[in-house]
Amino acid sequence: MSCSYAIIGAGALGCYYGSRLEQAGCAVHYLMRSDYDHVAEHGLRVESMHGEVALPKPKVYRDALAIPKCDVAVVAMKSTSNAALAALLPPTIKDDGVALVLQNGLGVDEQTATVVGAERVIGGLCFLCSNRIGPGHIKQTRFDHMKLGELASRGVSERVSAIAADFERGNVKAQAVDDLGLARWQKLVWNVPYNGLAAVLDVDTSVLMAHTETAALVEALMREVAAGAKAVGDYVIDEVFVQTMLGNTRAMDAYEPSMQIDRQQGRPMEVEAIHGEPVRMAERAGCAVPRMRMLYQQLLLIDTQRGT
Amino acid sequence: MSCSYAIIGAGALGCYYGSRLEQAGCAVHYLMRSDYDHVAEHGLRVESMHGEVALPKPKVYRDALAIPKCDVAVVAMKSTSNAALAALLPPTIKDDGVALVLQNGLGVDEQTATVVGAERVIGGLCFLCSNRIGPGHIKQTRFDHMKLGELASRGVSERVSAIAADFERGNVKAQAVDDLGLARWQKLVWNVPYNGLAAVLDVDTSVLMAHTETAALVEALMREVAAGAKAVGDYVIDEVFVQTMLGNTRAMDAYEPSMQIDRQQGRPMEVEAIHGEPVRMAERAGCAVPRMRMLYQQLLLIDTQRGT
Repeated sequence: MSCSYAIIGAGALGCYYGSRLEQAGCAVHYLMRSDYDHVAEHGLRVESMHGEVALPKPKVYRDALAIPKCDVAVVAMKSTSNAALAALLPPTIKDDGVALVLQNGLGVDEQTATVVGAERVIGGLCFLCSNRIGPGHIKQTRFDHMKLGELASRGVSERVSAIAADFERGNVKAQAVDDLGLARWQKLVWNVPYNGLAAVLDVDTSVLMAHTETAALVEALMREVAAGAKAVGDYVIDEVFVQTMLGNTRAMDAYEPSMQIDRQQGRPMEVEAIHGEPVRMAERAGCAVPRMRMLYQQLLLIDTQRGT
Repeated sequence: MSCSYAIIGAGALGCYYGSRLEQAGCAVHYLMRSDYDHVAEHGLRVESMHGEVALPKPKVYRDALAIPKCDVAVVAMKSTSNAALAALLPPTIKDDGVALVLQNGLGVDEQTATVVGAERVIGGLCFLCSNRIGPGHIKQTRFDHMKLGELASRGVSERVSAIAADFERGNVKAQAVDDLGLARWQKLVWNVPYNGLAAVLDVDTSVLMAHTETAALVEALMREVAAGAKAVGDYVIDEVFVQTMLGNTRAMDAYEPSMQIDRQQGRPMEVEAIHGEPVRMAERAGCAVPRMRMLYQQLLLIDTQRGT
């Protein structure tokens, strides 16, 4: 018995996971704006490490009110658009349904909770490289696994297991976690330094790691994230975890994090979710994070200058 | 009785002060490279707040060996070229002459001292806005005062007073200081945040001050410089000084610091003198300066990427 899904903000991430869920036999409804006309006429095309999937007649919508109420509304837009959730989520979720927040950073689950209630929020972390390479044309290149967990409680719930099972049937490795907060802070260990520095300096991960001083800065930022996690939630992110993140990134091909690409393309960057909220939470908990704050301050200026 | 001067590295700064010293009646010899041919044929033209000065036949040289030995060799090139001092200074200074180091940051007096001996080094700090606007054509727009002091001793020496008097006769306000170290750290209070952040973010001083978060970052960096000064030399840079620097900068027109312009034009930035050396000295003295180090790390990467 699989769930039905409404993909709220069907871009490179939403369309990719939507196509996987369709492969798993789930009913998937896509809310999209700019690509609506093209997809309604020509369908969706998703290239990935699982091969190419053509969806000639996906269920696409321009208006959330037209989407049938689903078991799961997948929050797949960028967190910079979360003000729109109040209008988009209530019409698309069944009374006993949930919102699955596939966004980066901190505070995003809570923003969704203000609309649907914390007990109806499941947070998800995606480890995905996927890009929109044309209208209705998505290309995923590597990684697609995710972690899922309840916002309002610890432990793995039945509904989290059910959603994970849907993704697994679609060949996406989906891990149910019993502590969403820890998982979100763990992901920040990577996102804070690499997204932030790549955006400020406009260089990819390989350049950051090729220079001793910036690699040391990345590591210092990771340690501040770990200290913040400890202060905020007593989450333990140990030195092995930090060194693993550094080692994995060194071993990766050159990669331009999303925030760098957003800056290059003049789009809003997810500064508040990835940098602002963690900084504020750590400082409120009495943990000094001077490098994280400085990075946040620099990104705020860049975001303000965007388009000027 | 005035001194004779060899201007080593006669660019926008060296030619401006050279022209002032000529107005004061001093003998001035200019060592220059790229503009040599033009200036040898057409002379020097210096526009400034003191009016326009045309020097039809300045004493220009391409080779330091051709310059007569002078009382004062003025180190006026960028500190990124200081490796050349070993070849340039000995031929141009009399046995009882001195080197006057008109460079920014820390370590520059000491680099000169390795060539001529610490007891023959006078450090100078310039508060000058001057640009080369064409071959042999310099335009100073505002500020030209300087502070001068001995490297190897405290108190105001006779020779510092004599040099200051030469500049004063040329209408440059030249203040003899009894503690060069304090003066250099005081100047860093402005140079570290504004040069560094303007170069990293490619924005001018008015943009930095117009945004609450970057203005707060500027202030935090100034406090780190003050803490470093205290740790390194027991120099007292108090809150009034910091607030005065912030207030003066807010009151200024938009200004692009030299490091930002160097970055824009793909030229070497004075990262080691302005950022690297202060960071190393503060940390060696047991003073944590995380924001200063982060700025240094970012600038190093930018400097490395230059021209790539």
